[in-house]
Amino acid sequence: MRAPDELRSLTEAYLTELALTPELSGLESAVRYALAGGGKRIRPVLVLATAEAAGSSAEAALPAAAALELVHTFSLVHDDLPCMDDDAERRGRPSAWAQYGEAVGLLAGDALLAEAFRLALTYPTPEVGRELAQATLGMIGGQYLDIGDPDVDLAVLHRLKTGRLFAAAVGLGLWVARISALEQAPWRAFSEELGLLFQVVDDVLDGDGYVASLGEDGARALAAESAERARARLAAVPADTTVLEQIVESLAVRTA
Amino acid sequence: MRAPDELRSLTEAYLTELALTPELSGLESAVRYALAGGGKRIRPVLVLATAEAAGSSAEAALPAAAALELVHTFSLVHDDLPCMDDDAERRGRPSAWAQYGEAVGLLAGDALLAEAFRLALTYPTPEVGRELAQATLGMIGGQYLDIGDPDVDLAVLHRLKTGRLFAAAVGLGLWVARISALEQAPWRAFSEELGLLFQVVDDVLDGDGYVASLGEDGARALAAESAERARARLAAVPADTTVLEQIVESLAVRTA
Repeated sequence: MRAPDELRSLTEAYLTELALTPELSGLESAVRYALAGGGKRIRPVLVLATAEAAGSSAEAALPAAAALELVHTFSLVHDDLPCMDDDAERRGRPSAWAQYGEAVGLLAGDALLAEAFRLALTYPTPEVGRELAQATLGMIGGQYLDIGDPDVDLAVLHRLKTGRLFAAAVGLGLWVARISALEQAPWRAFSEELGLLFQVVDDVLDGDGYVASLGEDGARALAAESAERARARLAAVPADTTVLEQIVESLAVRTA
Repeated sequence: MRAPDELRSLTEAYLTELALTPELSGLESAVRYALAGGGKRIRPVLVLATAEAAGSSAEAALPAAAALELVHTFSLVHDDLPCMDDDAERRGRPSAWAQYGEAVGLLAGDALLAEAFRLALTYPTPEVGRELAQATLGMIGGQYLDIGDPDVDLAVLHRLKTGRLFAAAVGLGLWVARISALEQAPWRAFSEELGLLFQVVDDVLDGDGYVASLGEDGARALAAESAERARARLAAVPADTTVLEQIVESLAVRTA
């Protein structure tokens, strides 16, 4: 089993070499620009680590991992648009629409989502695609709550907007490893904690979200509880979960 | 085999009763508003007619037909946005963004695309989803050409932007009917003519596009040639294609 850093390198190499649909023609540069934004690749690394822990190989899981990262990137590209968060910058560079114009930003997001399904559909059975579709729809529901309702419950919002893709990361790895729905329960219980852990730590680092609602100490305490629950649930998974434990630790103590 | 009007009624009933993903919550009304826009449902009717001609049933093809109509609707919703065509009206009503605001219009389009894949993935094998993904990517490439290049070749543009979904309509019906890739060739040759036929007639009715480049007589002549080719290719399909012939006729002589 490979360490998270190796899995991240695999992901980066796969995304860099990914052949996009030729008919996208000039749109390809905006799609690649958005994908090359230097994210931490946490979601695809989780897919690969889960697949290996469940008895498959990271290589077999790469299309599913990349599909999930494309859906995540699609959501960022559309979230940044002027009619949404109106962010002209992302990770220290112009956001996709700021670099290529609004119309190309919109279409690049659409293309990322469609390419994600193309990748998910390279598997011989439809489970990977189904997991991705359901997670994407949950995430879009979360984006809607985020723009639509100022009094929304943060836990409900993040369970959708952040949590669904994190949970799907584990689910995708399990489908690639051909773990039956019945055997997935302990993994799923673990996966449902990851979005919260990621989000609370994110809010502690940014000083918003849960920090605004619970105070900094409250948010740190929630992060610690969430990390503890994630560890406990992972301990109940009947497999060698060493690498997944390392990922939980890095989520819990990350500083960027 | 049922007539085009019956297939259209089936489509309308299926779309009206379609259960959307519950997590979309309040976004559902914008999605339903866009879907209920009173379009002609040509693409889903083609899916159903192809499935019946190829030996399956329209009922079995309904999820694929609806998925294609959702992709088409997604493209209209995003095309209408201010950063694209900036159309505040569609088919005599406010367009989705004009009715619900730009952000909700954007997310409703995203949700339509993701729901389309959810539907396409209800089949036990991935072919329907793959056909849909490839067609969607081609169409997005066409949208990019449409906004990006003022000197674009109209034939290239429409083969992607209009043609790919029409061709996929036939392809989806064939996959539902479990026609092998090898046996699909004559059907595919027919399907590739439909987008051009639809588009040229559309331009004659609207007085733009091919009318601008060829003049009205030139565009009418092109429509007649295209209809003739479609009939000839359909005649080479080894099946009872009566209903498909009716659809070609209605495409060729439509006045709205």
